[in-house]
Amino acid sequence: MASQKWILMTTAQTPTNIAVIKYWGKRDEALILAVNDSISVTLDPQHLCTTTTVAVSPMFQSDRMWLNGKEISLSGGRYQNCLREIRSRASEIEDEKKGIKITKKDWEKLHVHIASYNNFPTAAGLASSAAGFACLVFSLAKLMNVQEDQGKLSAIARQGSGSACRSLYGGFVKWVMGNEKNGGDSIAVQLQDEKHWDELVIIIAVVSSRQKETSSTSGMRDSVETSLLLQHRAKEVVPKRIIEMEEAIKNRDFLSFARLTCADSNQFHAVCLDTSPPIFYMNDTSHRIISCVEKWNRSEGTPQVAYTFDAGPNAVLIARDRKVAANLLQRLLYYFPPHSDTDLNSYVIGDKSILGDVGVDEMRDVEALPPPPEAKDQIPAQKQRGAVSYFICTRPGKGPVLLSDESQALLNPESGLPK
Amino acid sequence: MASQKWILMTTAQTPTNIAVIKYWGKRDEALILAVNDSISVTLDPQHLCTTTTVAVSPMFQSDRMWLNGKEISLSGGRYQNCLREIRSRASEIEDEKKGIKITKKDWEKLHVHIASYNNFPTAAGLASSAAGFACLVFSLAKLMNVQEDQGKLSAIARQGSGSACRSLYGGFVKWVMGNEKNGGDSIAVQLQDEKHWDELVIIIAVVSSRQKETSSTSGMRDSVETSLLLQHRAKEVVPKRIIEMEEAIKNRDFLSFARLTCADSNQFHAVCLDTSPPIFYMNDTSHRIISCVEKWNRSEGTPQVAYTFDAGPNAVLIARDRKVAANLLQRLLYYFPPHSDTDLNSYVIGDKSILGDVGVDEMRDVEALPPPPEAKDQIPAQKQRGAVSYFICTRPGKGPVLLSDESQALLNPESGLPK
Repeated sequence: MASQKWILMTTAQTPTNIAVIKYWGKRDEALILAVNDSISVTLDPQHLCTTTTVAVSPMFQSDRMWLNGKEISLSGGRYQNCLREIRSRASEIEDEKKGIKITKKDWEKLHVHIASYNNFPTAAGLASSAAGFACLVFSLAKLMNVQEDQGKLSAIARQGSGSACRSLYGGFVKWVMGNEKNGGDSIAVQLQDEKHWDELVIIIAVVSSRQKETSSTSGMRDSVETSLLLQHRAKEVVPKRIIEMEEAIKNRDFLSFARLTCADSNQFHAVCLDTSPPIFYMNDTSHRIISCVEKWNRSEGTPQVAYTFDAGPNAVLIARDRKVAANLLQRLLYYFPPHSDTDLNSYVIGDKSILGDVGVDEMRDVEALPPPPEAKDQIPAQKQRGAVSYFICTRPGKGPVLLSDESQALLNPESGLPK
Repeated sequence: MASQKWILMTTAQTPTNIAVIKYWGKRDEALILAVNDSISVTLDPQHLCTTTTVAVSPMFQSDRMWLNGKEISLSGGRYQNCLREIRSRASEIEDEKKGIKITKKDWEKLHVHIASYNNFPTAAGLASSAAGFACLVFSLAKLMNVQEDQGKLSAIARQGSGSACRSLYGGFVKWVMGNEKNGGDSIAVQLQDEKHWDELVIIIAVVSSRQKETSSTSGMRDSVETSLLLQHRAKEVVPKRIIEMEEAIKNRDFLSFARLTCADSNQFHAVCLDTSPPIFYMNDTSHRIISCVEKWNRSEGTPQVAYTFDAGPNAVLIARDRKVAANLLQRLLYYFPPHSDTDLNSYVIGDKSILGDVGVDEMRDVEALPPPPEAKDQIPAQKQRGAVSYFICTRPGKGPVLLSDESQALLNPESGLPK
């Protein structure tokens, strides 16, 4: 360490992901090992991602972290596990231009600063911890010149948050539960990249909720301890579904993909309900969105849209193509219009171009939308104004990337503190 | 048949029942044979019952039935099954005073009139078909002098509506699923009569709902065909629970009774959710009632109240004794006050004497109720005005009875038509 004034920084961006075969239940709480395999779709980081800057400097007195500008504690076991695992694999680096050399031994004593930012509301229940831990591990590994493949990094991210391991890849990703006691083989693998099935369009309905939700950590612990259906699901149901889902994705077979996605989401919530005390993540609005999609799919004769819900009331809706997505958004805006003082620009975010396909330019167009044809037997088709906070239009996306443009760093290159 | 002008009538009253180990899924659709045993509590007919008058006369041209004053068709298979099974077991009767004699042969040609009345709203989802078919079979059997024991009658009522077989007894009743192909051993048996555990108090919250509900007949068919959890529940989970529940009832062990009742209700709804398309019977209000009970039970250290939900959003709450019931009603009225124009007299029905224990005489007392102590961490404890339509206070009750007082008959003794 030639000079004592330098700061070395790395910035990365990591996507979030949505499971289509769900992870629910750990067989090892500390290592975060799952009771079954799971499969996810990585979401386009342009609309939903975490950006993390990690920095190292001999000037830093301790490891520190800021999330969305606010300092948070790193003392939790999950952060500590990720930091320890990455540090233990750090390699020597040398930057002759800047006159920096860090040996493997040096890394044990050097402290890091971490700044992380989600481009979506953290509290909205959109798997922010998955993207967050994936980005932490990915950026630290780059900074510390860790010589491990992406699979090994996924096993480290897994120890921060189970589903984080799936955010190490783009496209369609499987988290293999593995067999080893130390979790060495409990890693994520990419099934297909994001270009494989790029017609898919994803609309997320962020559902308003006044209920305080059960955290997924304590929820799945309760399920493992009390649900009499969970083990049957993990041992008998999911293994078959994993094989079928891999086939469906490989063949771009939307019918099977939708059938499996919806069934597995519903079964995960069934296991939550079978827990003592029961866990309710979906609310009446979630139920109405499901009913709307089921009715439409039935009226079309073949599935147009798949739905899946994580540990919260938000619906993630996967449309088979862009045309279907426009029809879906039209239905969603019809049934779930915003409160009258809402700006359309903040009610539909992400890839707003779909609004053009719907023929909606402003709020008055939303109010003028006709009822969907399959709603004809409901007189009048009930509108639920304000039940949805906003919609995010997105698609399957790529995995983690390094941001080489220093202006995108979240830490000041002089002070190592948040900008 | 000496004179051709006579009418012979019988009137009976039959209770409804609420399952504490649920029946969900048939192994034979036509005979209504269940995939698992179930256990129920019979509800006091004073508050929830069906009254049925059946009449026979050579003057009647066809079998006819009136439900709550409105004529309904008897052509459905379920009515036809019950009528056929009872008729085939009819015995000779002779009333020398009235000069009436009906031979076994005569019964084949004679027609019946049936008038049935529920002392509770039919559409409220309170198992009206259970009480209805039980009463139909019980009263017809009496009228036709059927020489069968109550178990055999329960097997006939079962062919009208599965859960109807359990309404042939008071107290605590088991529907044994049986093994025989013809359903001859699929009958109800009384586990304990209503005096065995008479401290229990039951409060039913009739929950407001705008959703059209899936009928239990089509719902359970869909579950049998599509749920991957249902068979596991029926084969592995319920048999053990049946044994434990029988023990709990025998020993008046409220802790086990409550634990099993709540877990089995939640598992039944979990199977509904695991169905394709998923079935949602509980709504946000149902969930809030569960959360309220779970929180209170936890704060007391041992269960005070058990909850169970049938194929609808209504909560059936079983309190361990009257004092607990008063505390429960106080909580319910606090969290779920009526709209301001509601009369207290129509908001709490059934055994209103519990209102006195709560110290509530009029609506202003409801508004003045203090928040429950366990709600202290919610500021303010959220009230859901109008989410409950009304409460029914009741208790475990007796089985079917004959009403000998002719003034209680629902058919005119001269015309054989509804009064």
